[in-house]
Amino acid sequence: MRIISSVREMQQATDNFRRAGKLIGVVPTMGYLHEGHLSLIHLARRHADVVITTIFVNPTQFAPNEDFTKYPRDIERDTALAESAGTDILFTPSTDEMYPREYRTYVVVEQITKMLEGQFRPTHFRGVTTIVTKLFNITKPHVAVFGQKDAQQVVVIKQMVKDLNFDLEIIVAPIVREQDGLALSSRNVYLSESERKQSIVLSSALRRAEEYVHRGEKTPSRIIGEMKKMITAQPSARVDYISIADPASLEDVSAIPHHGSVLISLAVRFGQTRLIDNMLVYIP
Amino acid sequence: MRIISSVREMQQATDNFRRAGKLIGVVPTMGYLHEGHLSLIHLARRHADVVITTIFVNPTQFAPNEDFTKYPRDIERDTALAESAGTDILFTPSTDEMYPREYRTYVVVEQITKMLEGQFRPTHFRGVTTIVTKLFNITKPHVAVFGQKDAQQVVVIKQMVKDLNFDLEIIVAPIVREQDGLALSSRNVYLSESERKQSIVLSSALRRAEEYVHRGEKTPSRIIGEMKKMITAQPSARVDYISIADPASLEDVSAIPHHGSVLISLAVRFGQTRLIDNMLVYIP
Repeated sequence: MRIISSVREMQQATDNFRRAGKLIGVVPTMGYLHEGHLSLIHLARRHADVVITTIFVNPTQFAPNEDFTKYPRDIERDTALAESAGTDILFTPSTDEMYPREYRTYVVVEQITKMLEGQFRPTHFRGVTTIVTKLFNITKPHVAVFGQKDAQQVVVIKQMVKDLNFDLEIIVAPIVREQDGLALSSRNVYLSESERKQSIVLSSALRRAEEYVHRGEKTPSRIIGEMKKMITAQPSARVDYISIADPASLEDVSAIPHHGSVLISLAVRFGQTRLIDNMLVYIP
Repeated sequence: MRIISSVREMQQATDNFRRAGKLIGVVPTMGYLHEGHLSLIHLARRHADVVITTIFVNPTQFAPNEDFTKYPRDIERDTALAESAGTDILFTPSTDEMYPREYRTYVVVEQITKMLEGQFRPTHFRGVTTIVTKLFNITKPHVAVFGQKDAQQVVVIKQMVKDLNFDLEIIVAPIVREQDGLALSSRNVYLSESERKQSIVLSSALRRAEEYVHRGEKTPSRIIGEMKKMITAQPSARVDYISIADPASLEDVSAIPHHGSVLISLAVRFGQTRLIDNMLVYIP
């Protein structure tokens, strides 16, 4: 595995691979890799000849009151994990190179960035679409792999790729969960022992919601009410939102449709730690 | 010369040229080509193996009250001119393909888009940086040629290219003028015979300003006052702005520096027609 930290060197490397006819896959991450990230790398391996994993804790997607400075980092462990999962090039740029002084350009996606996470993190997606644009221009991939865990991010990035005519394919990997159901996240390390136990309720509530939909419940507020009751029964849990939305527009549905699918998603704080999770539910 | 109107076909064509080791140059235009545009194509020819000229009247860089619908168009004449100037591929996408329904993504450059043109056309540069990003992703050039006539546009696009890590070089071509000094512009056809005569004052005022600077005048307001007097002596002229600014930051200078350069720029309306012009003045 080659480790590259300079933008110039990364662009030259990917140009050379492209000229040699190789298919390039990229897996953008903020590091502190877990099995979820490794599943993205494995998926990239299946679609590309050369797999680039990027590690960059992107300041512009954190608000001033958020956890940018304390976000967990362990580049030595990440390097070993990325290599063992099949990464060919690990791209680890510095913040100074990615955002030099007098940095001024942002990519914004309107409308679908306003709801769900956007309501609670109004500048978050601007940071995400900006850094992803930069990473696409630096790594020049044919395919890019993102995790379904960040469901809204997937929708936003797909919209951006289509609108800005990025000539690449977005591949989405399913959520990886702990044995007890908790979705893997680098932020899970923040949880106290008690919060960790309580956090199981998120995946339980999503599975309960799925049962309701499959049993034919058509009223979103009834399902959301039941989820909220389950979650708030945990003493540390504070709900930011629970949503049942159209998976494309991300707008809340007024009734569960008779065919198609809904995205059930939530954000819940346990103490200082904010967790998100979701489930795409198909109605056959 | 090959004419392409589909995004997909353009991307495949440029991919093939790139794989063959060819250098790609792009000249983005809104059509109604004049000698200024042709000079950009000639310059692209000197820097690239394959020259792509794009013609697209970009709706997002016009405000609702501006001249999008009446902007002059003549695709047959443009096709002949583009070919004779040395274009290899003419890319002429449709508005529907560039901005499909539910289009939602914009590229914004902060700060340097607020002054000069930005004061009078607050959404203009957002449209420019968005369409240029799209055209870069579609034509995948090694070099892109823009005209110094749109001085602020050049500064904004260079900032965007640097910030978003586009792996390409921006080349700037000098302003081409009529014999009497008027800078070439597709909008010059709007001018009545009388307005056309009066419009000569713009280049005269810029040359007068240059003389002042070369004679050692250090007070911008004196130079601007003299320019304003010359211009408003023309009965149809209405000044939007006259600025003497730092060529990088675009901020007005408080004094002409002892070394370096200043960008003297202006926008003046003659009847319904708004013209811009500028001069980079070096202080040796």
